[in-house]
Amino acid sequence: MQQLTAHDITVLFLSLGLLLGTARLMGELAQRLHQPAVLGELLAGVLLGPTVLGTVAPQFSAFLFPAQGPSAIALNAITTLAIALFLMVAGIEVDLSTIWRQGKVGVKIGLVSIAVPFLCGLAAAWLAPAALGRQPEADPLIFMLFVAIALSISALPVIAKTLMDMNLYRSDLGMVVISAAILNDLVGWIIFAVVLGMMGKPEGNGNHIAMTIALTLAFSATMLTLGRWLIHKALPFIQAYTRWPAGELSFAIILALLGAAFTEWIGIHAIFGAFLVGVAVGDSAHLRERTRVTIEHFIASIFAPLFFAGIGLQVNFWFHFDGPLVLTVSLMACACKLAGGFLGGRWGRMPAREAWAVGFAMNSRGAMEIILALLALQAGIIGNRLFVALVIMAMATSMLSGPALRLILRPARKWRPRDALSSKLFLRDLKVCTRREAVEELVRTACAASGLDAQSIMAAVWAREETLSTGIGNGVALPHARVAGLREPILTVGICDDGIDFDAPDGQPAHVLFLILTPAADPRAQLTIAAEIARLFRKQAMLDRALRTKNFTDFLALMSTSVGPDAAG
Amino acid sequence: MQQLTAHDITVLFLSLGLLLGTARLMGELAQRLHQPAVLGELLAGVLLGPTVLGTVAPQFSAFLFPAQGPSAIALNAITTLAIALFLMVAGIEVDLSTIWRQGKVGVKIGLVSIAVPFLCGLAAAWLAPAALGRQPEADPLIFMLFVAIALSISALPVIAKTLMDMNLYRSDLGMVVISAAILNDLVGWIIFAVVLGMMGKPEGNGNHIAMTIALTLAFSATMLTLGRWLIHKALPFIQAYTRWPAGELSFAIILALLGAAFTEWIGIHAIFGAFLVGVAVGDSAHLRERTRVTIEHFIASIFAPLFFAGIGLQVNFWFHFDGPLVLTVSLMACACKLAGGFLGGRWGRMPAREAWAVGFAMNSRGAMEIILALLALQAGIIGNRLFVALVIMAMATSMLSGPALRLILRPARKWRPRDALSSKLFLRDLKVCTRREAVEELVRTACAASGLDAQSIMAAVWAREETLSTGIGNGVALPHARVAGLREPILTVGICDDGIDFDAPDGQPAHVLFLILTPAADPRAQLTIAAEIARLFRKQAMLDRALRTKNFTDFLALMSTSVGPDAAG
Repeated sequence: MQQLTAHDITVLFLSLGLLLGTARLMGELAQRLHQPAVLGELLAGVLLGPTVLGTVAPQFSAFLFPAQGPSAIALNAITTLAIALFLMVAGIEVDLSTIWRQGKVGVKIGLVSIAVPFLCGLAAAWLAPAALGRQPEADPLIFMLFVAIALSISALPVIAKTLMDMNLYRSDLGMVVISAAILNDLVGWIIFAVVLGMMGKPEGNGNHIAMTIALTLAFSATMLTLGRWLIHKALPFIQAYTRWPAGELSFAIILALLGAAFTEWIGIHAIFGAFLVGVAVGDSAHLRERTRVTIEHFIASIFAPLFFAGIGLQVNFWFHFDGPLVLTVSLMACACKLAGGFLGGRWGRMPAREAWAVGFAMNSRGAMEIILALLALQAGIIGNRLFVALVIMAMATSMLSGPALRLILRPARKWRPRDALSSKLFLRDLKVCTRREAVEELVRTACAASGLDAQSIMAAVWAREETLSTGIGNGVALPHARVAGLREPILTVGICDDGIDFDAPDGQPAHVLFLILTPAADPRAQLTIAAEIARLFRKQAMLDRALRTKNFTDFLALMSTSVGPDAAG
Repeated sequence: MQQLTAHDITVLFLSLGLLLGTARLMGELAQRLHQPAVLGELLAGVLLGPTVLGTVAPQFSAFLFPAQGPSAIALNAITTLAIALFLMVAGIEVDLSTIWRQGKVGVKIGLVSIAVPFLCGLAAAWLAPAALGRQPEADPLIFMLFVAIALSISALPVIAKTLMDMNLYRSDLGMVVISAAILNDLVGWIIFAVVLGMMGKPEGNGNHIAMTIALTLAFSATMLTLGRWLIHKALPFIQAYTRWPAGELSFAIILALLGAAFTEWIGIHAIFGAFLVGVAVGDSAHLRERTRVTIEHFIASIFAPLFFAGIGLQVNFWFHFDGPLVLTVSLMACACKLAGGFLGGRWGRMPAREAWAVGFAMNSRGAMEIILALLALQAGIIGNRLFVALVIMAMATSMLSGPALRLILRPARKWRPRDALSSKLFLRDLKVCTRREAVEELVRTACAASGLDAQSIMAAVWAREETLSTGIGNGVALPHARVAGLREPILTVGICDDGIDFDAPDGQPAHVLFLILTPAADPRAQLTIAAEIARLFRKQAMLDRALRTKNFTDFLALMSTSVGPDAAG
């Protein structure tokens, strides 16, 4: 078998390490700024690719990411594998039963929010192909269809993440939007697969194209019915008769690989097979949570950043940046998706304000649009300029979504204890003997950092404490007060190795004290934070670990790794 | 960037899917036969590679696994990535603190069981290089060193798995063997890295080689001291300030990729860097169990089978099979490793029987020997014949280990409820009203399947039941008896949707009944099985899930996926 040389292997590992490292770093930064991680990951590729590094240090860039040769093929193979597995995870996240449960409203929004942008796109690409950057050699019909799809796609993962951040995911509105987005995803991808099929293979002719389209539709239909049923029936056998969890884990991945090979073979792209297998596997109630989580964590943490950073390597974003085109595409995308979402919501008898919210939520294009644009670029449907414009449009619409929804719906903010922690509000060694001294110390620290009046806060906290002691058991106490004029909760933590009697129901002394000061205007904040802390410290092990922390970073690490995982965004 | 064509991508996904599918299937079969999974995975490659498929259907084989071109490079890149990540996991499993805890005995065994085979190997390769299949063009000194290392390496993962299967992992003997194997692994790999370094790059000269060796030793020393400390200090920051678990997961993988790039660059192989990074990361008490498990599960279930099956693709095992060479290598390997282990054990004042057990345990070569042989083949140190002989020796010594240990130590067998379940001993719908009827029904089923005398068994079980009812709460009852002359436990399960009063401490009726019949000669079997069932049904959710099972497969799946994961072998 043809082997990579030592040089190729060095370059491969170095480029993968740098790509993943930069992508994760930038992804974290993006999330700090409340932006989707994919924005940062893409920027990492832009930094390491032709746009920045290729301009600043062309030789190093050519060494790391050669355009030709074994290293280029190796990196391409790994990012191709990465995108197929990422789409499999996207498929697993598609929960078909949500659509049935939400019923007509979701379907109406889903259909209208595809139909309106789709028709607008068709019309625009027919009337003004040049303004939209059509390549001279591109087939007009295929280009029209592509623009139509590019405008009508939504990004389920970004939408889900935005709704979760705003505590709206499980609300009626949230579930309707999610079910519409799932429908949108499914229909959009199948239409795009058909479009890719229409392009045929190089040697393709009319018959061949018809065959590809027929196979695409047949495969989609089979995977969503028979395939889904077979997988559902097979999973208990796999669980019963193979090693756990290796059996179930590899079963899912093997199916995705074979599905990918099949769809690539019939002339559409490998990712469709992986996506549809993901939908079918993820839909089975037999799939264990642990398998789902292992696949999702590994792929979302490693493969997805690698792939999105890899996109940034593809073209020079600066060189191919075309201001008017970016503006045209972005405005058109927003206008017709907002209209589609709004009209769909109104048709489903939603109030106007909620219908606008639906429009802005569905407007996120995120990762899906970028993948679509990449496939179109590789298939020669679009050129570099339109590719860059679509990527920027995808990012811009995703970034717009959160702030717009917040403005329209003004959701109650979700306070998590982890986010309110700060090193200034952390006392590792509380040297006090009584409950009163402990509370005083915490109040003093909180007020010194925030400028509140210590005396009045102490009076409020102590009054609450005297009514009913706030020791909740398991070594935790939660003294608290609601403070008029406060804008954000203030959480002050004190750890006391010796323990202080807080009159807890289980008789245990309190070792970890959380002073919770919340805005008087937000009555739910205090309950949310208290409930989350109580949940975290339900197990005795948590207290032991908290007492082993040596400093604020240790404690923050403990609180961060003990909560449920954040969605990958 | 150079792109794979649609044909390349189809071939890539198809070959990955078939390779992984066959490897997992054969790996499962091997484990059913109490053999290491790697044996089956390797055979999968032999089936799909030149040995079988290449002979039977050469055209299909050449289509799936072309020897040249982009598809070959793509597959090579992915298996190279797979092996580096697998070695990272092997490194994570190396727990340095075990060596310190076990103290001198482990170190003595570790050193002697390297030294004896190493010296034997040196001598044999010096005296009879031709009999050991030395390539005419190979450097005599490097060949001697390679044979010495090939004989002295042990396979920590296989040893650990064998000891776990025999319930000996946590015993004194087990921990001594493990600590000796860890030392063996570490020293063996570092020496091999030095040998690879001695070969130099094609353009290498004396200075260059000295530099490589110095860098290898410096890198190893740094990773095991400063690198380990830095990673330990960095982990809490990563946990505290990045998304969980993506941050920690990708941090470990990024370090492994960069470590791999570095060691490949200095002229030894990428896997050393990944291995040493694994050791350093895995050694930190800050690494969360969840991150470790996600990495281990994904890599052991997907990447390791892909890699080992890939080995089978490398050469025609039939064509290059050399009986005398296989025999020579295998006998020599066993003789000197057994001697080394035995002498080391005696030096550490172990009884002779235990010292022999140490020898047979350390004799497993497993995956590590195969990787070593592959690197030597790729580096041109050995030819195909010796490669095949080493792979067979690695498999043979691993297969010998379990039975030999069982014979020498006669450990009490570890009974797990999951292994004793059978569809013949499963009653999904127990239609009875009283405790006595329920027990009678279970006894009748157990005796019908096993040929025991129903009347005497019923008398024994009921006598036990009348002394103290066996309802243990949470809806579970465990009627039981010890039966003279029985060789294996018989576990009969009855599920009763209505529930039967078993006088449980929590007052709940019993829905899931396990009739446990154990050999009178093995007093611990009954306790082990009962304790494991009680542990499984500690949570109320387990009972609900058991009542939702529809048939035996569902129930077996539930029992299998609820236990801790099996080691990957």
